[in-house]
Amino acid sequence: MSDTIEDLLKSYLATGSFQRFLGMEFQSCDAEKGEIVIRLPYKPEFERGPDTRQWHGGPLAAFIDIVGDFALIAMLGRGIPTINLRIDYLRPAVDTDLVGTGRVLRAGRSVGVVDVELTDDKGRIVAVGRGSYSTLPPA
Amino acid sequence: MSDTIEDLLKSYLATGSFQRFLGMEFQSCDAEKGEIVIRLPYKPEFERGPDTRQWHGGPLAAFIDIVGDFALIAMLGRGIPTINLRIDYLRPAVDTDLVGTGRVLRAGRSVGVVDVELTDDKGRIVAVGRGSYSTLPPA
Amino acid sequence: MSDTIEDLLKSYLATGSFQRFLGMEFQSCDAEKGEIVIRLPYKPEFERGPDTRQWHGGPLAAFIDIVGDFALIAMLGRGIPTINLRIDYLRPAVDTDLVGTGRVLRAGRSVGVVDVELTDDKGRIVAVGRGSYSTLPPA
Amino acid sequence: MSDTIEDLLKSYLATGSFQRFLGMEFQSCDAEKGEIVIRLPYKPEFERGPDTRQWHGGPLAAFIDIVGDFALIAMLGRGIPTINLRIDYLRPAVDTDLVGTGRVLRAGRSVGVVDVELTDDKGRIVAVGRGSYSTLPPA
Repeated sequence: MSDTIEDLLKSYLATGSFQRFLGMEFQSCDAEKGEIVIRLPYKPEFERGPDTRQWHGGPLAAFIDIVGDFALIAMLGRGIPTINLRIDYLRPAVDTDLVGTGRVLRAGRSVGVVDVELTDDKGRIVAVGRGSYSTLPPA
Repeated sequence: MSDTIEDLLKSYLATGSFQRFLGMEFQSCDAEKGEIVIRLPYKPEFERGPDTRQWHGGPLAAFIDIVGDFALIAMLGRGIPTINLRIDYLRPAVDTDLVGTGRVLRAGRSVGVVDVELTDDKGRIVAVGRGSYSTLPPA
Repeated sequence: MSDTIEDLLKSYLATGSFQRFLGMEFQSCDAEKGEIVIRLPYKPEFERGPDTRQWHGGPLAAFIDIVGDFALIAMLGRGIPTINLRIDYLRPAVDTDLVGTGRVLRAGRSVGVVDVELTDDKGRIVAVGRGSYSTLPPA
Repeated sequence: MSDTIEDLLKSYLATGSFQRFLGMEFQSCDAEKGEIVIRLPYKPEFERGPDTRQWHGGPLAAFIDIVGDFALIAMLGRGIPTINLRIDYLRPAVDTDLVGTGRVLRAGRSVGVVDVELTDDKGRIVAVGRGSYSTLPPA
C-alpha cells in the first residue's frame, strides 16, 4: 500500500466533527482486495447504561457504516456515500475496545457492497454489518 | 397516555452517556398503537464534513435504532434489546433538526418489528429504518 | 395512467418462465407516484407443509422483490435490476391469496428505494419488504 | 454427523410442494458448527427472460432463505421459522447450477443469525444473504 492511500484514509478518518468524536484509529488496509482494519477505543461517552461499560448500539452502528465505507475508499481513492446498511448485534460489547474489519464483496459501476465484522478484545464477533455504497462518480 | 409511561420514556431517553450525548427530546407517543415521536436537535458534533452543517450518517443510524426501540418500550413498558436493523439513507440532512417517528408493525412473543422515518425541518424524509427487537422477557 | 404503461407492466409480468410460474395479476398503478398493486393467487405449488395451505416464505420473498421492482418500472418505463432486499415475515399466510402494494420512496440517478406490503384476504399485513434497485440507465 | 441428522435434513428438504418444486439436493453439513451445503440445479422454470438461461432473483431469494434455515435446523434438529432476511445480488447467475453455503453466526435462546453465500459453477459468489430465524421452542 502506498503512503498516499494510507495518508488519505487517516486524514479522512479525522475529518468532520462526528468522526473526530468517535476517535477511530487506522490499523491496516489492502487497497487491491478492498480490506481495511480500523480500531475504535472505548470511551465513557459510548456507554449504554450507567456504570456498565457496555457499548450502546448507536456507536456500533456508526462504526460499522464507516468501516464499510472506508473499505471502498481504500479501493477507489475517493469519498463514497452510504446507500443502505444492515446491522446484526450478536453479543454485548462490554469493557472492551473494538476492531472493525471491512471486506469489499463487490465494487460495481454504481454500487459497492461491503461486509463488516466488529470484534472485541477477546476476538469474539460482537456485531456484523453489510452495507451498500454509491460508487458512481460525482456528476 | 398515562404520566407513568411518558415519565418512563423521558427517563430512559436521558439514561446512559451515549443517549445523553445525542440529546433527544421526547415529543409524543401512543402506547396502545406503538407509535412514538422523538426530536433530535442538530449540534456541531454530528457534522459530516467541516462547515457543511450536513449530518453524518452515524448519528442518524443511532437515532433510528433508538426511535424503533422506544416505540416498543412505549408499548411494553420495559427495555428491549435490538436484534438487527436496516437503514436506508434517502437524501442528505443539512442544516436541520430531525424528527423520528416509530411505528410498531408487530409485537410478538419473542420479536418486535418497527418502522422508523426521519424527517427534516421541511417534512422531507431523509432516512428510513426497520428494526427487529427482542421482546422476550428476561430469563 | 396511459394504456401504454399498463400494457407494458402486464406484458413484463408475463415475461419469463419464473414470473409465469408465479401467476401474478396486475391490479392498478399510479406511475407518477410510483405506486403499484399486484395480486398473487394461492396455488398448491406454494405450499409450505403438506396439507397446511400455508404459504412458504420463498414465494413471498420472490413476490416482494417483483412488486418493488414493478413500482419503479411503472415510474421509469424500463426494466430495473434489484440491488438488495430486506424481507420481514410478520404472520403466517394461510389459505389466502396475496395482494402486494409497492410504493417508491426514492427514485434517484442510480438507486431507487421501494417499500412493499403483502396483505391477506382479511387485509392483514403478512410480510413487508424494502428493496434497492439500480435505476442507472444501461451503459 | 449421524445418519439421523442427515436423514432429517433430506426429508425436510423434500417436504412441502414449494421445496419439492425447487428441487434442492443436500450436499453436506457440520451440525456442531452449524454449516450446511445444499445444491440447486438449474431448471427452465427459474428463467428470468426468455432464452437467457439467467436465473430470476426470486428463486435465489427463496433458496437463500432455505439454506439459512437449514444451517440452524442442522444444529438444533427441529424446524425454525424465518424472522427476516437480507439479500444482496452481486452478479447475474447465468447457465449454471447453484451451491448454497450456510454458516450460523449465532444460535441464541430466541434468535439465530445465519450467513449464506450462493456460488455458480465457476465458484463465483452470485448472491449473499443474512437471515434471522426464531429459535424459541414452540410454546
